[in-house]
Amino acid sequence: MLERVVIVGTGLIGSSIGLALRRAGFDGSITGVDTNTAEGSEAIRRGAIDRCVSNADAIQVCRESNLIVLAVPVLAIMDWLGRLAPVLKPQQLVTDAGSTKLAICELAKPMFNGEGQAAFLPGHPMAGKESGGAALADETLFADAMWLFTPLVSETEQMREWRQWVVCFGCRMLDLEPARHDRICAWVSHLPQMVSTAMAAMLADEFAQSPELADEFAAIGGRALREMTRLGASPYSMWRDVAITNTEPIAATIFALEQRLNHLRDNLKTPELREEFSKANAFTFGRKT
Amino acid sequence: MLERVVIVGTGLIGSSIGLALRRAGFDGSITGVDTNTAEGSEAIRRGAIDRCVSNADAIQVCRESNLIVLAVPVLAIMDWLGRLAPVLKPQQLVTDAGSTKLAICELAKPMFNGEGQAAFLPGHPMAGKESGGAALADETLFADAMWLFTPLVSETEQMREWRQWVVCFGCRMLDLEPARHDRICAWVSHLPQMVSTAMAAMLADEFAQSPELADEFAAIGGRALREMTRLGASPYSMWRDVAITNTEPIAATIFALEQRLNHLRDNLKTPELREEFSKANAFTFGRKT
Repeated sequence: MLERVVIVGTGLIGSSIGLALRRAGFDGSITGVDTNTAEGSEAIRRGAIDRCVSNADAIQVCRESNLIVLAVPVLAIMDWLGRLAPVLKPQQLVTDAGSTKLAICELAKPMFNGEGQAAFLPGHPMAGKESGGAALADETLFADAMWLFTPLVSETEQMREWRQWVVCFGCRMLDLEPARHDRICAWVSHLPQMVSTAMAAMLADEFAQSPELADEFAAIGGRALREMTRLGASPYSMWRDVAITNTEPIAATIFALEQRLNHLRDNLKTPELREEFSKANAFTFGRKT
Repeated sequence: MLERVVIVGTGLIGSSIGLALRRAGFDGSITGVDTNTAEGSEAIRRGAIDRCVSNADAIQVCRESNLIVLAVPVLAIMDWLGRLAPVLKPQQLVTDAGSTKLAICELAKPMFNGEGQAAFLPGHPMAGKESGGAALADETLFADAMWLFTPLVSETEQMREWRQWVVCFGCRMLDLEPARHDRICAWVSHLPQMVSTAMAAMLADEFAQSPELADEFAAIGGRALREMTRLGASPYSMWRDVAITNTEPIAATIFALEQRLNHLRDNLKTPELREEFSKANAFTFGRKT
């Protein structure tokens, strides 16, 4: 059924989706939309898309497609939803890869999935790299990853087909209510990002004040700090939209960590430190047990 | 020259030093000292030590050795320095693998390196794993790692020989003044540990309150949080001593991070967020540039 796919945003996620589709055997057309012609060209060179069109030509291309994948930052996804809803028809499916879901879903509700409207299935692949761009795109980026969905209506045939492709990418799937998605992602993804950014920014300031410290750090290295600051390389362009559309849950998780650090700091020399280590030892998420 | 080595503490670090010595071609004797006979037996089984003696027999074994490596937590190292200093002779070298150096060096200064006293070269291999024990010991644990030293006196022949073995382990070396060592390690190692412990303990509490959250976390996974909480598995037994002997520098780095997180939290919707991401992007420690 799926013959003509449009991927809006040919960066890391968009281009990896194109490559994953090809790897899974998709043999229809894949058209990219990107204002950044260098990214578009790189995506074509990598085989992620067949051709790339500008925003001006995008609406016509989208009208002629079966599936539109919005792989741009959250606020841009919301812009595209507003532009596409009036021009698409039933039988056409829009999906997205946005990092937050509540704002997107609230906006989309009256515009999609109704009588005479196109379908929209909100999605969020839990995969990425700390640096973006089509050059880093990877056909196996989603292998063994979780692809979250926050469906607004019961499943249609087109949605089922898109989910089948996602399964072919090697993903597991989980459906969540949009607000719960955003609260969980605040813990799993947004808080780690903000901690990495805070630590890297803080160290950058320390280094600016004493360059010899930077040399010693570079010499000493160490996996702990490298892991802790890895996400500091992540782009503001994407995270600004996450921060704007999930402010309260993110602020709540940051505040909780501030409180916890304060508690640890007050107890560096008391038996309470043992309690904290004991609780942390019992936390087994993602560890071999 | 080096013929008889004693390694006090046959856990991860002590046993890995034994294995690294063997791998580098050391063919003298290696005697382990451990109150935990299971750890001692495992260290023998792994080939890290030839035999293991109890604390009661340790002093006699140390008297007969050329080199004593103290690979126990910091406060235990300080206990051993006090026990060994009166019974050792010049030409015997003591070194250690303690995570903090100022308290150890202050204690050792009057007891070692003087007329008629044994030599002491304080050291700190920047390597480890989040879980300890001889079973995880690895002959390549120190390959490409940094081995820090905080020498108290100018180098003797015995110290030079120990450094040569450390080079054979594949280490780079850097000499630091003890107080500076502790301040830098607060940033590079102790702060990441405390952040991991705080995050893991906090999530353990969240999960205790809502078990369905634990299931969703387990399903979603994600590298970011896994990296952030990896060190949460680290043992209190070791970190208690680090916290006690480096309290002020650790408290200062934790406080700085609290402030920075507070600043980020206040600016999730302002242009200041761009500044923080921009600074973090410029921090390149440990990243490919």
